[in-house]
Amino acid sequence: MRNIRLLIEYDGTMYAGWQEQKNKKSLQGTIQEAIKKLTKEEIIIAASGRTDAGVHALGQVANFFTKSTIPAERFAMAINYHLPRDIVILKSEEVSTEFHSRYHSKGKTYIYRIENRKIPSPFERNRSYLVKKELDFEKMKRESQKFIGTHDFIAFRSTGSSAKTTIRTIYRLDLKKEGDMIIMEIEGNGFLYNMVRIIAGTLVDIGKGRITEGVESILKSKDRARAGNTAHSCGLFLKKVFYDLDTPGTM
Amino acid sequence: MRNIRLLIEYDGTMYAGWQEQKNKKSLQGTIQEAIKKLTKEEIIIAASGRTDAGVHALGQVANFFTKSTIPAERFAMAINYHLPRDIVILKSEEVSTEFHSRYHSKGKTYIYRIENRKIPSPFERNRSYLVKKELDFEKMKRESQKFIGTHDFIAFRSTGSSAKTTIRTIYRLDLKKEGDMIIMEIEGNGFLYNMVRIIAGTLVDIGKGRITEGVESILKSKDRARAGNTAHSCGLFLKKVFYDLDTPGTM
Repeated sequence: MRNIRLLIEYDGTMYAGWQEQKNKKSLQGTIQEAIKKLTKEEIIIAASGRTDAGVHALGQVANFFTKSTIPAERFAMAINYHLPRDIVILKSEEVSTEFHSRYHSKGKTYIYRIENRKIPSPFERNRSYLVKKELDFEKMKRESQKFIGTHDFIAFRSTGSSAKTTIRTIYRLDLKKEGDMIIMEIEGNGFLYNMVRIIAGTLVDIGKGRITEGVESILKSKDRARAGNTAHSCGLFLKKVFYDLDTPGTM
Repeated sequence: MRNIRLLIEYDGTMYAGWQEQKNKKSLQGTIQEAIKKLTKEEIIIAASGRTDAGVHALGQVANFFTKSTIPAERFAMAINYHLPRDIVILKSEEVSTEFHSRYHSKGKTYIYRIENRKIPSPFERNRSYLVKKELDFEKMKRESQKFIGTHDFIAFRSTGSSAKTTIRTIYRLDLKKEGDMIIMEIEGNGFLYNMVRIIAGTLVDIGKGRITEGVESILKSKDRARAGNTAHSCGLFLKKVFYDLDTPGTM
């Protein structure tokens, strides 16, 4: 068997999330169907992580096993032929059979996009979280830097997550303003369920003045109720998945 | 009668262009219908210029006459209520009855977006012109500056235009590269029919090496056949319309 790794970009608007579900259109199911049309095999693709309904990806990583003799780098174009236009395979390559997109992931970069204007732009529909109230960007930026480092992020996860530990390390968090857009880029060794969206929601609530408590204090409290709302899924983009240089078949 | 001026943003993908047409969905027709629902009058809106099918606007300007007593600044939100989500009125204000969106326009800024990658991004669909072949950006940038100034742009217009003169002045042309995107911003006192798209198409053909002649030489030739293709409408955005400070009711 060969192990093929895919780099995938998708607009998640029309999907019930990554994970295959009965009677619902999922990214996993749609991509599996496209591969099946090509290889005539029953295959299963495993992603670096499941994205929720409406979440987008610029660089999701997934892998699948096949007996097909199609040259590895040709899979991308061949699968694209069978995919709808809101999903594209950017790259395909053969990796060691030991490689697993999820277990070998060493970190991820996410982007969260906030549209801060009174009247929503037609071009931002389903691609950002609309906040009509004026936001104090400087305050958001200042507080955003408090997330950097190794912390217990238990106050910043949704219930239902099964992670063994709630300690995570954020390497980088950039918050920038481009016209009416506020764009957060966050990089860490891993993220709890809804963690990026709760961080974004907390920063928005800080910018609105709804939350006056500092991020350090919320982290210390370990209390989900003191963090902000889970910001809307449509503002979230999985930008990049990192693998160690010594991971079998690094991308 | 009151003269109301609107600042409008729209995604032109689903429209047969600005101008009202029988049995086709137009921007003008759609906005007029929304205003009629509000004022119960038969009104006609005049824009700064007609955009073609698929062309977008970040800041189209249009005006209409009404007997309605609705406060001028309230029109924006009230019309938005009756509009589909791909059109939004950003601003409304009362201007002198002499003001005309088209005749008083002193210039415009357009953006043209080119996606230069082998595999099209799902997020650029209908919002940029896909060019799969690698482009020589530096050469495009160098040649792009030759458009600046006052020239006879007869080689850069589509037939069917009825302009009295083909002399136009380009004040500014910025070409920048952001990842896989090449973005042109062009400002001038006026543009002939399809002029921005032919300029963009010519720069793409120069970047591909399909056109080896310089822009100065093409301008001098006055020969449409020596300029490049008319680049696809979906990459074009009307960004701003300028009015003189002494124009009645400057925005």
